[in-house]
Amino acid sequence: MKLCGDFLSGNCYKIKLLAAVLEIELDWIHIDILAGETRTPEFLKRTPIAKIPVLECDDGRYLSESNAILNFLATDTEFLSKDVFEYAKIQQWQFFEQYSHEPYIAVARYIAKYLGLPKAREAEYFSKQEGGHKALQVMEQQLQQTPYLVGNRPTTADICLFGYTHVAEEGGFELGKYQAIIEWIDRIQSLPNYIGME
Amino acid sequence: MKLCGDFLSGNCYKIKLLAAVLEIELDWIHIDILAGETRTPEFLKRTPIAKIPVLECDDGRYLSESNAILNFLATDTEFLSKDVFEYAKIQQWQFFEQYSHEPYIAVARYIAKYLGLPKAREAEYFSKQEGGHKALQVMEQQLQQTPYLVGNRPTTADICLFGYTHVAEEGGFELGKYQAIIEWIDRIQSLPNYIGME
Repeated sequence: MKLCGDFLSGNCYKIKLLAAVLEIELDWIHIDILAGETRTPEFLKRTPIAKIPVLECDDGRYLSESNAILNFLATDTEFLSKDVFEYAKIQQWQFFEQYSHEPYIAVARYIAKYLGLPKAREAEYFSKQEGGHKALQVMEQQLQQTPYLVGNRPTTADICLFGYTHVAEEGGFELGKYQAIIEWIDRIQSLPNYIGME
Repeated sequence: MKLCGDFLSGNCYKIKLLAAVLEIELDWIHIDILAGETRTPEFLKRTPIAKIPVLECDDGRYLSESNAILNFLATDTEFLSKDVFEYAKIQQWQFFEQYSHEPYIAVARYIAKYLGLPKAREAEYFSKQEGGHKALQVMEQQLQQTPYLVGNRPTTADICLFGYTHVAEEGGFELGKYQAIIEWIDRIQSLPNYIGME
């Protein structure tokens, strides 16, 4: 299988991390967003959703959206669940990530780390702080009760939320007061075959 | 099962629609967001994610996030799929909805319909138009190829995206130029036991 992505993207990193931990071989095809490579006719043929990551299966079918790709790759592994309620809980945390976590933490980090916090984006950067901390508090509350987001073992919900949480400080989110999150980050980083973000 | 929600919310309506079509009985518990009812200690005991909708199962377990609830309720019905790739495709469209559709179309509609487009929110309202139309174009492209988002039959991906798409004009998004979307809306509204938004 091939993965069209960019190593700087946390949404692509999630997939890289899961593939490493599950020892799934993926060919990486580098897509340069800033050069408009997600807008070429060739790329759009793969998916009308003009975004990375995109998974290309061996049979030529394409799949977009990082969390859908995670769940597809984790089929029949211990990172997913055959229990219907547990699988729904995994999805619950992934939808939470896309709506209530990533738009704050990933965007603030992008503005600070990759754009260098320019004056023109300062207001936006600061407007992201409250929402980001709200998301971290929600995670903290869950992780005070269970070692992983959906119970006693890591799932794709953890891989998903680990992506931007473990680099949240680069977006100005001090993690010091989130003790349960800090311990959870340690647990993820101790997974066999763990691989860091570039 | 019980559903904590608010009929004005499109995210709650999705669940109401699926439950009607699948003839699933749900007790509705009205939660008034504006009165702070998602912030009470009792509500937060149900879920650290302080948002509606929340599903309460008969065994007392709780599930948040509208799309996770849709997929849980559709288990073993024709609105989901046992095919792993097809299920991933359903999720793909649901993640697309939460990240690339709802934050534009639902928010613009909220500002126009419920707040009456006040001066203070005008810039935000207009800033939502481009992203909303981008999302509609992505849907249009898919629906020109297949009658439903994931092929030849309706799934929870359609129920999910129908929620705010069929009332997009209330957010200023003229649907006239999206012929495939208009025909798809007709198909959804023709489903047996279809129920409209309040």
